[in-house]
This record gives sequence, structure tokens and C-alpha cells, in this order.
Amino acid sequence: MKRSIEDTPVVMVGAGNLATNLAKALYKRGFRIVQVYSRTMEAAQALAVQVEAEATASVADITDMGRLYVVALKDDVVAGLLPRLVAGRENALWVHTAGSLSIDIWDGLVGRYGVLYPLQTFSKRREIDFDDIPIFIEAHLPEDRDLLKGIAQILSRKVYEATSSQRECLHLAAVFTCNFTNYMYVLAARLLDKYGLPFDVLLPLIDETANKMHKLSPEEAQTGPAKRHDGNVIGHHLELLADEADIQAVYRILSDFISKEK
Amino acid sequence: MKRSIEDTPVVMVGAGNLATNLAKALYKRGFRIVQVYSRTMEAAQALAVQVEAEATASVADITDMGRLYVVALKDDVVAGLLPRLVAGRENALWVHTAGSLSIDIWDGLVGRYGVLYPLQTFSKRREIDFDDIPIFIEAHLPEDRDLLKGIAQILSRKVYEATSSQRECLHLAAVFTCNFTNYMYVLAARLLDKYGLPFDVLLPLIDETANKMHKLSPEEAQTGPAKRHDGNVIGHHLELLADEADIQAVYRILSDFISKEK
Repeated sequence: MKRSIEDTPVVMVGAGNLATNLAKALYKRGFRIVQVYSRTMEAAQALAVQVEAEATASVADITDMGRLYVVALKDDVVAGLLPRLVAGRENALWVHTAGSLSIDIWDGLVGRYGVLYPLQTFSKRREIDFDDIPIFIEAHLPEDRDLLKGIAQILSRKVYEATSSQRECLHLAAVFTCNFTNYMYVLAARLLDKYGLPFDVLLPLIDETANKMHKLSPEEAQTGPAKRHDGNVIGHHLELLADEADIQAVYRILSDFISKEK
Repeated sequence: MKRSIEDTPVVMVGAGNLATNLAKALYKRGFRIVQVYSRTMEAAQALAVQVEAEATASVADITDMGRLYVVALKDDVVAGLLPRLVAGRENALWVHTAGSLSIDIWDGLVGRYGVLYPLQTFSKRREIDFDDIPIFIEAHLPEDRDLLKGIAQILSRKVYEATSSQRECLHLAAVFTCNFTNYMYVLAARLLDKYGLPFDVLLPLIDETANKMHKLSPEEAQTGPAKRHDGNVIGHHLELLADEADIQAVYRILSDFISKEK
């Protein structure tokens, strides 16, 4: 019987937002998730039950039955944990999922390694369709690159190869596009709350601001008082924010930079 | 024959992004736009032809046949122009459409006045469905408030009364939600461009960041290195931005503030 790519047994190392969404997407497309590791048994179990996998909170108990190990942990714990993770499991393909970590973190630890980076924001409470999520892959060996590409293409129609430095730039751009944008929503919600106004009146504006990007470049889409060099409104807004020093500082720096744009 | 609210002859003073979208929405819902004024005949004409109206670039030639005059000009030119605008046309209802201008700008100039503020971002090149756009109205006289509410309700299902200080807060929140968010896209595009990566790989992320707001609060939705207090990634990103002082400054201040959040 011909083995298909979905028969690759997968071990998910991590059970956070990205790990949860990725494991569920792999499971849905027919992959067998054999085990989920997390620092806490509770988190491991919460994901494991959703993908019919074993759960463990002990690195020593991570199975050696995996052929693909997906490491989706906080960036700042990955490096320290890797030697213990791979020990005794050196023949499998190891990938991490982090935008900002180089492929070189694997160098010297294992022979088969790479990166599988889905460019999206994940929350455990929101299930995401992987179809349109750009996935950027990188691998040390050409045959593993092909395997990773095959796996990624089962998840998404948008699979690209990217070097570590391109991926780093993608991640940085994503911080602006997603994390900082979301923080603008946080500040807006705080302002509305202060005046007893509900956040959901902003939803059509939030949607349209995003939708515009499908038709216009960000430069073409830029509007607002700073873009119009409307000093009256800017001055008035800074006054309104007089007792919100942090929000005022954000308003000031962004308005300054927008005004400076050609 | 009973006169319906759509028979109110409308004069549009302004032909910018908001004026264009509002005039077209009114026209579509059966209102008669009798005239469009703009500082340049070219702009006036560009809108006028779309709504079967006359065009003029001369304040003196603005018709006195309107019963509703909608002033949608740049905030910083409105105040100076009002006395000349209303002269000889004092019996009509005058409204402006600006988030940050008080209703009081009309005080002493005309007897019937108010505000009609659609909370949305408008571009001439993008036609927008008004159905779901929140419209905030305010009027000096109760009967004009009812008339304005009736007009707004023909355009949108979401019509609210708001005081000038509530509207001011809405506008400020909109600057964060829309203008500053769009500027995050501008910076992201610039970074990707530098590394030869196409902007459209960010579209699924942009969409999901907006979509999340329909299900989660902005605080719940916040992710990223600053939220995770991931100093390694933040430090690395600041290094990557070493020769982009402006972008680096934005990264630094926003990461600092996100890290400080509870």
C-alpha cells in the first residue's frame, strides 16, 4: 500500500495559540498527531483531546515514534530546551514555527530540520481556516524541503519558501500589521469606555480599514487629520488626551510621522 | 400629494471623500441633490455628474433652493467660510459632518442647524454601503433633530444621537482605529518592500486581526512579542530597525506600552 504524506506521524511540542490551531488543522486534514507536549499537563491535555493524541508534560516522556516534530513554544524558551528535546529522537524531521528564530538554531543538534511559519494571528478560542494562510517554509535538506512543502500544501494554497532573514522581516511586518493594530483598538476602546460609548460602533470602520487593503495600497488608503495636515484637529485631540499621557504620546508620534510622509 | 422626506432638496458643500460618498448614498436613496459646491470646478463637477446635480466653484453662486445644506469641508476651512456660506440661505437646515467640530460653530449664524456624522473612512475610489455605518446626529431644534434622524435612517440602520463631546471622542477613537491602523500597514509595506516581499501576504493577517474584534475584546485579542514579554524578539526587532529610526521609534513606544498593560 502506498503511503501518503498524511501518514507522517506528528508530535506537537507546545499547546499554545499557534500549536493548537496548527495541530487541529493537521488533524482535520488527516494527519495523525501522536502526542502533544506542553509544560503543563492541563494545556497538553486540552489540545490532545481535540486531536486524539496522547498528552505529556515531561520532556523525557516525549515519544520517539514521531517522524515530524513541530516545536511551537515561546521563542525565548525554545533554544534552551532543544538539546533535551531532540535527544534520542535525532532521526526525525524537526521544525519550529517561529517567525523570528533562524533555521540555524537546529544546527549541530539534528541532521534533518527546518521551519514551518504560518503568517497569521492565532487564538485558542477562534478556529481558523488554514486554506488562505500564507505558510513560509525553509529546510536544511532538499528532500525535507519537499516533504515540508507537501505537508504545508495540504494545509494551505499559499505555500512559499523563505529564508530566515525574509521570515524575520515577515514577522516584524506582522507585529505592525496585527499586534500594533490590535493595540490601536485597545486604546480606542479605552477612550470610548471613558465616555460611556460602546466599542461595537467602531466595527464597520475596523472592517472597512482592513477591506481597503484588498483594493488600495496603504499609502493610497491613508486618511485622517495628520494626513490632511489639519493642525486644529490634531491640537484639539492632544488636549483631549491631556490626562492620558501614554495615549497622547502614541497620538503625537504617529501623527508626526504621518504628517512627514510625502 | 404627501411629501416624503426624500423630497428635501439637498445642497452638498464639499466634494471630498466623505462628501462624495454621502452625496451618492443620498442620491441612491432617492434624495434630490440640487447642487454641489467645491473650491475647484473640477472636483465639484466630478461629483455633480454622479448625482445629477449642478456644480459650482463659487460661494456666491450657491443656490438658495436647498432645504438641507450639508457642509463637508476640511475642518480647518469650515469656520472661516460659514458666514459667507449661510448668507441669504438662513432659512434652511445647515449641518456639518465633522467628528471634531462642535455644533456650536453654527451658533449665531443660522437658526436651524446640526451635525450628521457618519463614522467611517471614505475614499472617492471606493463606494461604500451606508446600511451598517453608524451615523451620529445632533441638532439645535427638536424638529430638526427628528428630520435629521429621519434622513439618517433612510441611509443607515444604525442612527444614534450624540453630543458634540461624545462625537469628539468617537472621532478620536476613529483616528486610532482607522488612521493609525492604516499607518501600521504603511510601515509594514515599507519593511516588506525593503526585503523584496509582496504586501499581499499580509492580507489574511489584516483580515483576521479585524475579524477578531467581532468575537473578542481588543484586550483578549492582543498577541505578539510585547504581550508575551519576549525580550529576545523585541531586542532583535529593534536591531533589525537600526537604520529605520522612525519605524524603530514607533516599535519601541508601542512595545513598551503593550508590555506595561496588565
